[in-house]
Formats: sequence, structure tokens, C-alpha cells
Amino acid sequence: MTSQFTRPVRSAEVIAVGSELLGSTRLDTNSLYISERLSAIGIELRSKTVVGDNLALIADLCRQALARVDLVVMSGGLGPTDDDLTREAIAAVVARPLREDAEIVDHIAARFARRGLKMPDVNRRQGQVIQGAVVLPNPNGTAPGQYLEHGDRVIVLLPGPPRELQPMLNALCEGLLGARAAADRVYRTSLFITGRTESHVEEAAQPLYSSWRNEPEPIETTILATPGQIELHLSLRSADGAAAERRLREASDALIAALGQDVFSTDGRSMEELVGSMLRERRLTIAAAESCTGGLLMSRLTDIAGSSDYVAGGLVLYSNGLKTNVGLVPPDLIETHGAVSEPVAVAMAQGVRERSGADVCVGITGIAGPGGGTPQKPVGTVAIAVLVPGAPVRVRTVWAYGGRTQVKFNATQAALDMVRRALSG
Amino acid sequence: MTSQFTRPVRSAEVIAVGSELLGSTRLDTNSLYISERLSAIGIELRSKTVVGDNLALIADLCRQALARVDLVVMSGGLGPTDDDLTREAIAAVVARPLREDAEIVDHIAARFARRGLKMPDVNRRQGQVIQGAVVLPNPNGTAPGQYLEHGDRVIVLLPGPPRELQPMLNALCEGLLGARAAADRVYRTSLFITGRTESHVEEAAQPLYSSWRNEPEPIETTILATPGQIELHLSLRSADGAAAERRLREASDALIAALGQDVFSTDGRSMEELVGSMLRERRLTIAAAESCTGGLLMSRLTDIAGSSDYVAGGLVLYSNGLKTNVGLVPPDLIETHGAVSEPVAVAMAQGVRERSGADVCVGITGIAGPGGGTPQKPVGTVAIAVLVPGAPVRVRTVWAYGGRTQVKFNATQAALDMVRRALSG
Repeated sequence: MTSQFTRPVRSAEVIAVGSELLGSTRLDTNSLYISERLSAIGIELRSKTVVGDNLALIADLCRQALARVDLVVMSGGLGPTDDDLTREAIAAVVARPLREDAEIVDHIAARFARRGLKMPDVNRRQGQVIQGAVVLPNPNGTAPGQYLEHGDRVIVLLPGPPRELQPMLNALCEGLLGARAAADRVYRTSLFITGRTESHVEEAAQPLYSSWRNEPEPIETTILATPGQIELHLSLRSADGAAAERRLREASDALIAALGQDVFSTDGRSMEELVGSMLRERRLTIAAAESCTGGLLMSRLTDIAGSSDYVAGGLVLYSNGLKTNVGLVPPDLIETHGAVSEPVAVAMAQGVRERSGADVCVGITGIAGPGGGTPQKPVGTVAIAVLVPGAPVRVRTVWAYGGRTQVKFNATQAALDMVRRALSG
Repeated sequence: MTSQFTRPVRSAEVIAVGSELLGSTRLDTNSLYISERLSAIGIELRSKTVVGDNLALIADLCRQALARVDLVVMSGGLGPTDDDLTREAIAAVVARPLREDAEIVDHIAARFARRGLKMPDVNRRQGQVIQGAVVLPNPNGTAPGQYLEHGDRVIVLLPGPPRELQPMLNALCEGLLGARAAADRVYRTSLFITGRTESHVEEAAQPLYSSWRNEPEPIETTILATPGQIELHLSLRSADGAAAERRLREASDALIAALGQDVFSTDGRSMEELVGSMLRERRLTIAAAESCTGGLLMSRLTDIAGSSDYVAGGLVLYSNGLKTNVGLVPPDLIETHGAVSEPVAVAMAQGVRERSGADVCVGITGIAGPGGGTPQKPVGTVAIAVLVPGAPVRVRTVWAYGGRTQVKFNATQAALDMVRRALSG
């Protein structure tokens, strides 16, 4: 579809609507996703604003943004209730009427009917469309999005829940919005690293990326510490896609040469996805006996679609009583070495192998805190044992840094990384 | 100190400055802290904006904010480099000169000297003060903050790093800003609800909160759908704290009367915290046999500090083979009813009770998707059985809505809710 306005869209502002985003507990995370997707089609995000459910203020902010940038992305405020004001506010900004679209209302009613429910009357609001807007289907929810051109500017209305917003934004970037963007694009790649601190990654990688910054088409690098991993994000703006991707591949290879096996992912796959793929390729199954992680290791593995092909299952042995009652750990082992010890981790891995018959078995025991630490074994001490076919048991004691949920996560990350290295080595 | 302007400060906008906050990896978290601190002294945050290091745009956004609210809080952009533009931008907005403050420069030079370093010349920029501004000492860094009154409006400049910003904001709220705030404060309460959709909560609660809006001191209500629960947030601005808290308690009681047992929390506690407290009070232990949720139920329960007092442990039975091999589920039960069925859920709960000796036992089996659904048992179908002491088994089949990780979460939420109702009833 060719637009009547040919000026390319190069700049954008995001306005996230929702009083709950102004409190002290909740952040607007959609803007990160929007920033990345827009940047990929060469559109620069200039500012982003969060505003409460206030009709006049939403309209005011949108009007001011339209005076500055080519594109305004509105997220949220498309729900069925009186609080959901984005449709009315934008209709006021562009001075066009809202009309109920019978097809959308039927579609919403059908969604309710599939769950055996009658559509509440308030949901009719979600069928209101600004005159002249293109309706954007929402595969994961009731509120459709809207795309409208206003002079040479573009306004997009998207629902707030990330799993609704994301596929709709992707479709827009490949469709209506992509067609309005400029010829140059931003190309990206990323490396996920584990087993090193942020400063140790920086030390090894800095000489490489400081040289890339001085090239005619510079590669920008961002280093980011996230739970359980360090991420290096590389990006390059170019009108030549093939050349850009070749340059990024070379840069990525140079980083792998510098960082070695600590680089676990170069395609954005998480640790649980990666370990899952390795198990699937090698036709192996996995089981775990977890103490301090309370089932989180199994839960992360089963977050991946298709994981029933390789996840057998496991045991959560939270109390010491249960560890010995189910016969997995001999009581004298706990008495001699303590519940958080390498011999107990090994007994847990071996015990779950006997019971499950799985090929790869993991035992984890540790102190998640905040209580239970001692000077010898402080909070965060975790013993992990990994059994893979045809190799001696691997066992390590790690210090999983952070608060309780972080200790749990970091312990599962360390365990998955041990499985990854055992299967690679 | 009495200000010459007596109009109280009631409303605010926050503008966070820094191009790094516009990318796809970093969020402005200061705004959460600012929101909470301001709200505590009765100042309502109306919107918050993140803007890159762009002088004209920073000034433009500040000017527009001053037209709407009493207070503008600027965070970031006070560093020593050319990118740090907040001082210049605000000086332009209020049309006053910037002057170098010798005392600040000496103070910064002394900080460097203490580390055996000579102050780089660029740091002189951090000594620039807008004419008429009060300088705010920064105990944790080089950049001081600034407080200035502009007509009846207030502008505050604070540095970006949280450990510098937070103590400075606290001092302001107790000092200059506190003195400008109104006598009234905002009081809040919230209700968490499960087992109803957002629209069904709205339908039941709407008549109540629409009447509260018309009172002399209106109660504001926000409804919010989050994974596994609907949240109702109530707030009330008042100069009489005891009366406000009584009104909120009455409102909360009226909502509980309308929504019944579906209200599970009135103090912000999560479902896993609440069920944990019930188990602790009743001195009961819990165990689970999980299939489609892959350990997430146990993992959520063990996210709570002290949960080792009541979480015994459990089994993750992901493959059908493992379900029958460990003797928990007779093979003919799966053949007759299918792995996802109420009889299998009951067998799992009973089996884990026999093995663990725990008081409360849960069995969960379902289809997390995206594959494995059938017309009779679509993706999201989950059978849950709950055993509590001295009562017959409770079993339900629920439809856990959403993508794979949402199905897992919603299934654990439904299971925890069944435990909650069983222990209450």
C-alpha cells in the first residue's frame, strides 16, 4: 500500500497510558521493546512519557509530541472500562469522530463465547474506531489497535499488555510503518555471556569495540548486566543489509575468540532454550532434584515449547526430612557434611537418576536466605552436581549473589551452564 | 524558611534526562522512588518523561510541564561532560544566567584530591548554578542539586545515579519541598481479586466506586488486570489521616461484600505469601505433584522467605512415563481418562501425600501448549486436585488463559487459590 504522504518517518515519541504506571511499583517495560523495533526500521525514539488516565493530559501530550516528531506510539488505555481513555483522547486530537465497528464487537463477543462467557456490555467500548484509522488485529486479546495518518504524521494506538502489543507492533513494522520508514536500517546482534563479571567482560572486549567505533559505519556496543548473564549488544546503521550483517558476524566472531566458552548464546536464545536444544539434538532426557531452588530449574526448562520431548521431571526436596524420607539422601551424609554440601548434591543427582531413568541429572542444594547462613556457608552458597552419560559426575560449589529470588535464579543459571559445558565438552 | 509564595505544591511531573534511558536495555527506575516520596507529602505525580541529551527538547518539555503542574523534578544530565545539558536547558527556560560557584568547584576538587587525583577541567561545569537557585549538597557524588522557584512553580534538578538522588530527594521532602506541600496527603489501599475477569470485577464494583467519586473527598479507583489477578487500587486525598483511613476501610469492606471470597488480599500480599501465611498459622505443610506447571507452583511458594517452615517439597512429573514409573498414577487411569483429567490429578495429589506425608497436597495436570491441544481438551485445559486435612478431595478443571508461560502461571494461581479457599472454608 502506497501512502499519499511520502515523507519518511524518522523520529518518534512513545506515550504510555495508565495511572498504575505512575505509582511506585510498576515500570513501563513496553517502551524498551518499542525502542528496539522502531530503531530496527531506522526510526529514532526521541522521548517517552508515562501519563495517568487523564483525558485532557493524554490529548495535550499527544498534541505536543505531534509538533515535534513524525510518529507517536500510544500504548495502553484501550481496555473496556471508563478509565480507558486513549481512543477518546486521540479522536479529540485529530478532531475526528469515534464509531463503533460491528465486526470488532462480534469478534470480541466470540472470544468471550469461546470461554463460555457472555460479553459484558462495557466491552463494546473496545469496538470504537477513530474515523479513517486502519484497524490492527490483536491475536492475543480483545482490544484491536489503530493506525492513523494525520497530515504527514502517524499515530499508532496499541494495547498495553506486552504479549498483545508485541506481535501487533511487529506486524506494523513489517507493514504500514515499515513502508513509511527511510531506506537505512539498524542491524543488531547480541552475545550472552556467563561465568564472568561485567568488568571482566568489559576488560576483554573493550579493545575490540573501541576500534569499531572509529570505522566509517561505526558499530555501537552496549554492555548490560542482567540476572545470571552479561549481555553485549552490537548495532550498526546502514543502507546495505548484506554488508552490515557480514560486519556484525565478524565482530561477533572476534568477541567469541576473546571470551571463549563463556559466550553461550549469539542468537538471543536464553540458557534454558539453549540447553533444551542441546538435549533435543543429542536425544537425551533431563531430570533434577532441587532443594533451595524449589522447582525453578524444572520450571525454567518447561517454559520452552516442546520441552516435554526431553524433560522427564524431578523432585523438589525442600525439607531435610523429605530428602531422607524418600530415600534419596542417606541421613548420615547430611549429618557428616551438612545438607548444603557437594556429597549431598551428588547423592541427589544420583538418586533422581535411579528413580527417573533420565540421561542427564542435576542435584542442587543451597541456602537461598535471608536466614540459614553461617560464616562457613553464607546465604547464597549452593552446591550443584551434574551427571551426563559416559562421564564422571561434575560437582561445584558456587556463590549465587543477591536476594532470595536472585539466589534461586542464579543457582539455576549456574546449574544449566554446568549442563551446557558438560554436553559441549 | 517561609517561602514568599504560599500556593501549595500539589502536582508534579518528572523529566529524566539521558540518551541511554531511551534504548532497549535500560529503564528509568528513579521515577518509582520519586513517585513514592512525593505521594507521601501529598504531591501527585501526573506524568513522567524520559528524554535524550538534547538541549532544545529538554527545555521544551520542561516549559510545557511548568504550564501544567506546580513542580517539575529533573533527574540526570548534571554530569561533567558536553552531553550533560540539564543546567543549560533549565537556565534557558527560566531566562536566568548560569554562574560558576567557587565553593562547589573547590568541594569537587577536594573530592578528587582525597582519591589522589587532580580534578579534570570538565568538572568545573558541575559548579554552574542557575541564578537564584538553592544549592542542594550531594553526599554521594560530585554533582550538587538545585532547587529554584519560578513564579509560583518549583523546579528541582537532581543527579541521575539512584544513590545520589535518593538522599537528596529525602532531604528536600523534609525541608524546602515539604514546607511547600499542602496539609493534605494521599492515602491508599488495594484489593487483589481472583476467579473473575476484569470486566466482571468492574460490573460488580462500578456502582460502588462511581458513588464514591461524588463525595466531598472523592475516593479514586483504578482497576488493573495483572497475571492471575485483578487489582483494585483506592486512593483518597485528605488532611485528616484517621478519617481517611476509616473511609478507605469502609470502602474496602463494601467491595469485599460485593465481590465475596474472590477478594484474596487487602494488604498487597501476593497469593503465594497469603497461602504461606495460612499454612504457617495452621501449622500445616504443603507438597505438590506438578505436570504442566513443571515445578512453578513449588518455586512460587519457595520465593517467600521462611517457606522452609511449611513447604515439604514435591514431584515434577513431566513425562507420562515418569507419572506411572514412580507408581504415582496407575497406567490404566491415564488410558481411560487421559493424562489431563481429574482422576489423574486426584491420583497425583494422593500419591504425593503418601510419599511426602505433607498435610496439604496438590496435583496439577494440563496442557501448557502451544502443541498438544485437542477440540475436547484445548491448550490451557488444566485439572487441579487439592487435599486438605479432614475434608474430601477438591477437584476442578480450569481453562488457564494465555501463552505457554501464562498458562503455567495461571494454573499455579488457580491451584493456590483452591488451597486458599479450602483452608478458609
